[in-house]
Amino acid sequence: MLGARCLLRAVRFCSSAPCPRHKPSAKLSVRDALRAQNASEERVKVQGWVRSVRSQKEVLFLHVNDGSSLESLQVVADSSLDSRKLTFGSSVEVQGQLVKSPSKRQNVELKAENIDVIGNCDAKTFPIRYKERHPLEYLRQYPHLRCRTNILGSILRIRSEATAAIHSFFKDSGFVHIHTPIITSNDCEGAGELFQLEAAGKIKVPEENFFNVPAFLTVSGQLHLEVMSGAFTQVFTFGPTFRAENSQSRRHLAEFYMIEAEISFVDSLQDLMQVMEKLFKATTMMVLSNCPEDVNLCYKFIAPGQKIRTYAEKQLFNWGIDLQTEHEKYLVKHCGNIPVFVINYPLALKPFYMRDNEDGPQHTVAAVDLLVPGIGELFGGGLREERYHFLEERLARSRLTEVYQWYLDLRRFGSVPHGGFGMGFERYLQCILGVDNIKDVIPFPRFPHSCLL
Amino acid sequence: MLGARCLLRAVRFCSSAPCPRHKPSAKLSVRDALRAQNASEERVKVQGWVRSVRSQKEVLFLHVNDGSSLESLQVVADSSLDSRKLTFGSSVEVQGQLVKSPSKRQNVELKAENIDVIGNCDAKTFPIRYKERHPLEYLRQYPHLRCRTNILGSILRIRSEATAAIHSFFKDSGFVHIHTPIITSNDCEGAGELFQLEAAGKIKVPEENFFNVPAFLTVSGQLHLEVMSGAFTQVFTFGPTFRAENSQSRRHLAEFYMIEAEISFVDSLQDLMQVMEKLFKATTMMVLSNCPEDVNLCYKFIAPGQKIRTYAEKQLFNWGIDLQTEHEKYLVKHCGNIPVFVINYPLALKPFYMRDNEDGPQHTVAAVDLLVPGIGELFGGGLREERYHFLEERLARSRLTEVYQWYLDLRRFGSVPHGGFGMGFERYLQCILGVDNIKDVIPFPRFPHSCLL
Repeated sequence: MLGARCLLRAVRFCSSAPCPRHKPSAKLSVRDALRAQNASEERVKVQGWVRSVRSQKEVLFLHVNDGSSLESLQVVADSSLDSRKLTFGSSVEVQGQLVKSPSKRQNVELKAENIDVIGNCDAKTFPIRYKERHPLEYLRQYPHLRCRTNILGSILRIRSEATAAIHSFFKDSGFVHIHTPIITSNDCEGAGELFQLEAAGKIKVPEENFFNVPAFLTVSGQLHLEVMSGAFTQVFTFGPTFRAENSQSRRHLAEFYMIEAEISFVDSLQDLMQVMEKLFKATTMMVLSNCPEDVNLCYKFIAPGQKIRTYAEKQLFNWGIDLQTEHEKYLVKHCGNIPVFVINYPLALKPFYMRDNEDGPQHTVAAVDLLVPGIGELFGGGLREERYHFLEERLARSRLTEVYQWYLDLRRFGSVPHGGFGMGFERYLQCILGVDNIKDVIPFPRFPHSCLL
Repeated sequence: MLGARCLLRAVRFCSSAPCPRHKPSAKLSVRDALRAQNASEERVKVQGWVRSVRSQKEVLFLHVNDGSSLESLQVVADSSLDSRKLTFGSSVEVQGQLVKSPSKRQNVELKAENIDVIGNCDAKTFPIRYKERHPLEYLRQYPHLRCRTNILGSILRIRSEATAAIHSFFKDSGFVHIHTPIITSNDCEGAGELFQLEAAGKIKVPEENFFNVPAFLTVSGQLHLEVMSGAFTQVFTFGPTFRAENSQSRRHLAEFYMIEAEISFVDSLQDLMQVMEKLFKATTMMVLSNCPEDVNLCYKFIAPGQKIRTYAEKQLFNWGIDLQTEHEKYLVKHCGNIPVFVINYPLALKPFYMRDNEDGPQHTVAAVDLLVPGIGELFGGGLREERYHFLEERLARSRLTEVYQWYLDLRRFGSVPHGGFGMGFERYLQCILGVDNIKDVIPFPRFPHSCLL
């Protein structure tokens, strides 16, 4: 009953909080203004940036956007309220009344009684031009301004919505969220592609390590999640991951986000694939229902025809297809350009922690990848080797026994069959939105030779 | 109507998904089993780790925990099901029927028909001892096993719950979530405390920078959030932050988490303080109502008397107290050991982006900190200098004009009054739970001379 008590007290407390300064007009976001009933007596205040100005003889039309939605609010004013400072990109505060719009384009418009220009914007030097549809390559030069365009606005709102959806999906499914470490002393996989770090003054004298040992940026939270799945059964993480790969491809970044999950008491790839499928579906459903305008803009702007490629529009998802080869693109194309699960990879190709299938001459491990059209690998995962002696032998063969005593401990004390997967978040966004270059679905892309801002 | 269509199709699609393997018993988490109705005909399966074993002449009692809740499920079995392998820490799968418990300690218990030991646990070498309450210092030696204790389990479940609550709070308040970059070329604040990074093979030849410029781990996402508040009005981030500080204090980590928010069209500290207050309250309310048992364990285990120090239990929060001094501890004590807002710091003490108050001889900026008992600074924030010429002058005085042209651009094109704040997530958890050492509220603590796992 702690909760109810708290609630009551907090409500009481709220009412004794300091009173906000007197405000003559109710402040509304553009999104809320657009959703308002047609007419209202109340005087409202809307703040945002000017997206268009049209000055007629007696009437001034503005479109004001504050990033709360793709759509802008139309402001109608007497031309006496016009000013030279009212330019594309300038910030304004408009007070007036929401009225029914005579136009079919919008339900309501704001009949302005007052327009204050808060910050000017010089059209001559502003890199974003009025009414121009800049290519994404052009916008990449301005990571501090490109979010003010419709297209980046939509992509980043969708990214935010997908982030929330992913957290909700796991919470609703009983997973515990874990912040796996960014800095790690593990350098198990692909040592050549790691970032190493050191206190700034000491970077040239790495023998004086800040952590006493060489430290790296994480390439995956998997091993740390395995620690936690041994206590909480179902765990996930959603955080940044790093590769010092010298790749300029449209699918790679030096800093990108991964959703990773580990589940105890799982002993079949089918069970894992079901969770992967559910995650993909739940997230995509949420994005489609909460940001339909933003999604439509992406389809229109970026990928004409992309719409029919998502499973929701045409049932192209044929989950559970089992195949054995690594020719990703060929496979996806061969299967009719649909998402394809590939399972059971050769043991020799996969890291020490993948579970041995103990099968015939083509010795495999219980690994699974999900390949999607245009992207390639979207998910990677598998069952982990939970058997102490199998793992011990694999570690010995890789000369990693000493470093991974802690990992062996997990099999020494109450080991359970378990598995997990990771999904690249930017690749997911590319996949559902049809965005060709990964640099356009992350706010501040980091890649070889580039770390702007 | 896109959403509804999707929903229908997805539902249809779900039913055609591959059928899970035949399962004789419904799998239940311990949490769901404990919440079940008293009696049920259905046979259920529960999997987890043994927390206690009590073997009587004819009856065997087990407590099984799977991390879904603090409470374990009592299993009652015929002593014929006993086995030497059933030890503290071993993993088990129990099948049977949920029945009303004759004991007052629990509503239901699991009457076992079958008990499988999945993974053994050798009590002699397992660092966690049966029925022993290990000190937190002892447990810190075992970052891969300590999450299996009651106390770390509770803390990490609360951490997960608080994470979800923070995401919900901002989403419900109309904020857009932004992943601010971890790697940055900015080194504005406290250059001495930065981590620098480089591709692992190249760390000794930093002239060949991976990014062409020296790159560092972020100390704050604020400046990047300001970029985004210029497009979305209200934005937040919740991610890792770094300090290469040589501090062994119980309040500092080299890697910690911050919640940061920026809000456009805000021109008073009062408005910022209200958001800070709401965030703290909403998150704490959610934790208290969703994890009452876990919170109670922390109070009992860690901080006897702490309970009455949280605002929900006793109305000690007296928000909005305005003071001007930097003697944090004295202040908090002086004010009766309650949270205290400190506002308007001397301009000379604060970074270039803080808004000039243009006040009397004691020249101040519009900064605000929230100090809390036992911790010190929990929140830090303020209004940002949105006036181009003020900012230009401050940058020039710090010889930063060239590097921060992009930051000046934000004031050149549609600038608006704005402000924001950051809250240290681990300090927040310390504060509400009364945990003395910050190393005990994060899954894998990183600090000078230590980077385990």
